[in-house]
Amino acid sequence: MMGDSLIIEDGINVQAIVLKGQQATLETSHAVPAPAKGEVLIRPTRMGVCATDLELCKGYMGFNGVLGHEFVGVVEEAADAKGKKWVGKRVVGSINCVCGKCDMCKAGLSTHCRNRTVLGIQDRDGAFAERFTLPAINLYEVPDNLDDDQAVFTEPLAAAYQILQQLTIEGRPYITVLGDGRLGLLCAQVMSQLNATVRCVGKHPDKLERCEKWGVKHRLLADVGLRQDQDIVVDCTGSASGFTTAMAMVRPRGTIVMKTTVAVTEQTEPIDLSPLVINEINVVGSRCGPFAAALDALSSEKIDVLSLISRRMRLSDGVEALRTASKPGVVKVLLEP
Amino acid sequence: MMGDSLIIEDGINVQAIVLKGQQATLETSHAVPAPAKGEVLIRPTRMGVCATDLELCKGYMGFNGVLGHEFVGVVEEAADAKGKKWVGKRVVGSINCVCGKCDMCKAGLSTHCRNRTVLGIQDRDGAFAERFTLPAINLYEVPDNLDDDQAVFTEPLAAAYQILQQLTIEGRPYITVLGDGRLGLLCAQVMSQLNATVRCVGKHPDKLERCEKWGVKHRLLADVGLRQDQDIVVDCTGSASGFTTAMAMVRPRGTIVMKTTVAVTEQTEPIDLSPLVINEINVVGSRCGPFAAALDALSSEKIDVLSLISRRMRLSDGVEALRTASKPGVVKVLLEP
Repeated sequence: MMGDSLIIEDGINVQAIVLKGQQATLETSHAVPAPAKGEVLIRPTRMGVCATDLELCKGYMGFNGVLGHEFVGVVEEAADAKGKKWVGKRVVGSINCVCGKCDMCKAGLSTHCRNRTVLGIQDRDGAFAERFTLPAINLYEVPDNLDDDQAVFTEPLAAAYQILQQLTIEGRPYITVLGDGRLGLLCAQVMSQLNATVRCVGKHPDKLERCEKWGVKHRLLADVGLRQDQDIVVDCTGSASGFTTAMAMVRPRGTIVMKTTVAVTEQTEPIDLSPLVINEINVVGSRCGPFAAALDALSSEKIDVLSLISRRMRLSDGVEALRTASKPGVVKVLLEP
Repeated sequence: MMGDSLIIEDGINVQAIVLKGQQATLETSHAVPAPAKGEVLIRPTRMGVCATDLELCKGYMGFNGVLGHEFVGVVEEAADAKGKKWVGKRVVGSINCVCGKCDMCKAGLSTHCRNRTVLGIQDRDGAFAERFTLPAINLYEVPDNLDDDQAVFTEPLAAAYQILQQLTIEGRPYITVLGDGRLGLLCAQVMSQLNATVRCVGKHPDKLERCEKWGVKHRLLADVGLRQDQDIVVDCTGSASGFTTAMAMVRPRGTIVMKTTVAVTEQTEPIDLSPLVINEINVVGSRCGPFAAALDALSSEKIDVLSLISRRMRLSDGVEALRTASKPGVVKVLLEP
């Protein structure tokens, strides 16, 4: 059984949002991909626009192809036995497609696979299409008590949970989550689960006010002294200047968790990295995280993601959705087929 | 007893190399400073020119005053009982002058004192003068078996030993010391004491060849593949581009130790920090280190510093010495009064 959707025959075309030379366009005659060995074909039912998508459009990673890496969807087809049990199931999926054979994979660091492709980011078409493929090994079944609007946040929430796997928390640290965007508001909620004094610092009162209902302290950046007094600063600003602010906030021998990746453009200013040395700061780069932890947190209602949804748009309006996602006041833009 | 030197009376002037608005000049009528409470007056017998001095001349830290923070000298005078026992002794001294009362000092992180002055770097006249002052609490007596040429390396060698206090070494890691200058050649020797495969990578065959006698592997940067395969990279390049090279050398989840501080100038290029996030790299800023460990290593001949001496010049030629220290092929320039 393939669920209640129409099965798309080989050779039939679908809609997709495709990036070529920093230009995103709607392709209406995108060929439905055939799942390769070990892969499944997925029909996404909800997709999320991420800051990384916006950076890709500015040239980050030099990516060309179908955009999109946040999705929930239904498995329609499997190439072989590996995917068969997933057919008809509602899934989310980790975005790194790995070889399992290189030194990183063998060392248990498969998200850093030397030969990886990354859904909608690196050498692999993404999820902003009516159909796309992913290895079956990447899939996680979505619990029944989560609807698509929640499940589509699994990937970015997993990235937030990655921080907890990388930090050692001692005493009761002061933690600032810097940035009040999509990722910042998720990280603020996740960090609040620690035995720590957590605040979210941003530039947008309308975004920050969501912290009220979660009981998370929040402050406007302009109202905060840059006093090198935070034990941990999580940079979720999505801007190159965020790192400089983080260096001015963290105490000597403190830790900056860096979640921000930005395209370097002609406008990018040089950064003075000397505070890292002078204050002996520890920087921890942090990327993709544990899907199981994220699904569990969503399922047990530890994290509120529904408040982050600003707009819902059609996949066919995906190019406009990318523009909308970069507008002031907008947090999460979701796409529907 | 004040040693065999002429005691300089109050009001008598001495020579000093003074930085004002990024211009270093020889002042011949520099007033001998009076040691403040807890301080001593030191007559330096040997001084070292450091990359930091050269960066200060380009505007780093916005410092104005007498340059110099690497020295060995004789204590001539003490302001009070705290310094009395040091008079006549040959000493080196840590460069951070601290309050002992702030949160950092109370947390045992006094090198990060909120109210510190730093010899020849921040709000305190330095050692490139016939006399200068330092708190008695900063002093370390030089063992008799070390001559001045060796002892003057205590401060930079301590900075190299600081790395060992910050890293956890597991297994037998691959370590690259990046940079074949003053600090790189010290760090290469120090890192070689670990259970690790260590290489020094630089751009200058004439500097790198010193590694031969120490049994430290060395390679030219141009001959090294940037393969993200090093467990630890120590950036001692002293150039803004060194960090980008370090990010290309270190493996995912590896560690970059950052020793380089450079002035940001109009020529500085923006750095793409996204590899930190993508490869989840750990960066450890590292500054001043343990003088006791450095003196012990010098005294027990674990570290060869004499091979690093390229030139000896007079303090009165200090401005020329700064120029010489930045010339190709020159490693350490020492000053004598």
